[in-house]
Amino acid sequence: MTDFIKEYHSLKKRKDDIFFMNKAIENANNSDGGPFGAVIIKDKNIISNGNNKVTVDNDPSAHAEIVAIRNACKELNTFNLEGCSIYTSCEPCPMCLAACYWARLDKIYYSNTRVEAANIGFSDDFIYKELEKSNDAKRLPIIKVDNKEAIKTFERWAANTNKVEY
Amino acid sequence: MTDFIKEYHSLKKRKDDIFFMNKAIENANNSDGGPFGAVIIKDKNIISNGNNKVTVDNDPSAHAEIVAIRNACKELNTFNLEGCSIYTSCEPCPMCLAACYWARLDKIYYSNTRVEAANIGFSDDFIYKELEKSNDAKRLPIIKVDNKEAIKTFERWAANTNKVEY
Repeated sequence: MTDFIKEYHSLKKRKDDIFFMNKAIENANNSDGGPFGAVIIKDKNIISNGNNKVTVDNDPSAHAEIVAIRNACKELNTFNLEGCSIYTSCEPCPMCLAACYWARLDKIYYSNTRVEAANIGFSDDFIYKELEKSNDAKRLPIIKVDNKEAIKTFERWAANTNKVEY
Repeated sequence: MTDFIKEYHSLKKRKDDIFFMNKAIENANNSDGGPFGAVIIKDKNIISNGNNKVTVDNDPSAHAEIVAIRNACKELNTFNLEGCSIYTSCEPCPMCLAACYWARLDKIYYSNTRVEAANIGFSDDFIYKELEKSNDAKRLPIIKVDNKEAIKTFERWAANTNKVEY
């Protein structure tokens, strides 16, 4: 590619990024829950929107990114969002970041940071720090209960040839 | 307390733990998705059940713990599960662990480990390791898009006196 074409593509990509981020921020501004919004795109089209629904849906997992992932999966009738990217008004918390991995998203674009979220009272940064600690050092007690039946559940799954993997 | 009473309470607690963990494993064994199950308890009563629903509901966030959290919140009509504990057949992945923090659960009890989950093909351990890396070292690209409108969403939230916090 010539430098001119490279520069054109780079500017075009930047224009798209601004457009999709503006949509995510619009969803955050119109949110009926916390001030967070997201869109998921595929082939440069918005396939789903999401905003924080924790308090309105009584669902602690209903962050903007997870709402957008659920809506995108419904739209595309799949549990695998390979080929899709998410634009989110704020850096995903560990729950949403892990959800992006599970959903097999290609890329995450964000604007506000976890520290800015902490500054207005959200626990994102605190939870990131908790996850870095070993289980026995975490504020939330995580206790192993030995049960010899538990592993059999996994053994049956491993042996099952009819399973739907993800 | 005398030693006898202490020992009685300890044995009783252990019996309860086994009972609730067996229920979580039962949910894992009867799962229509991945081999994971959970129960949430309050005052020694089971208030919700959950099993993995990722592939049957086309929802990458529908792990057993998150399904159980959503069901418990519906049951108690709240987004705050303080006073509740979760028993889960497997150590929560980072998504579910963070969801337990957001839901304000008191305690997590688990049986199978993240390494045992990895051994039958699940990404839990991989995602834990990814979360430990800085954003620019992660396998999933996480890109900051500067947008001066984004922070205004947070400023409006901070200034709003009618908001429902969580």
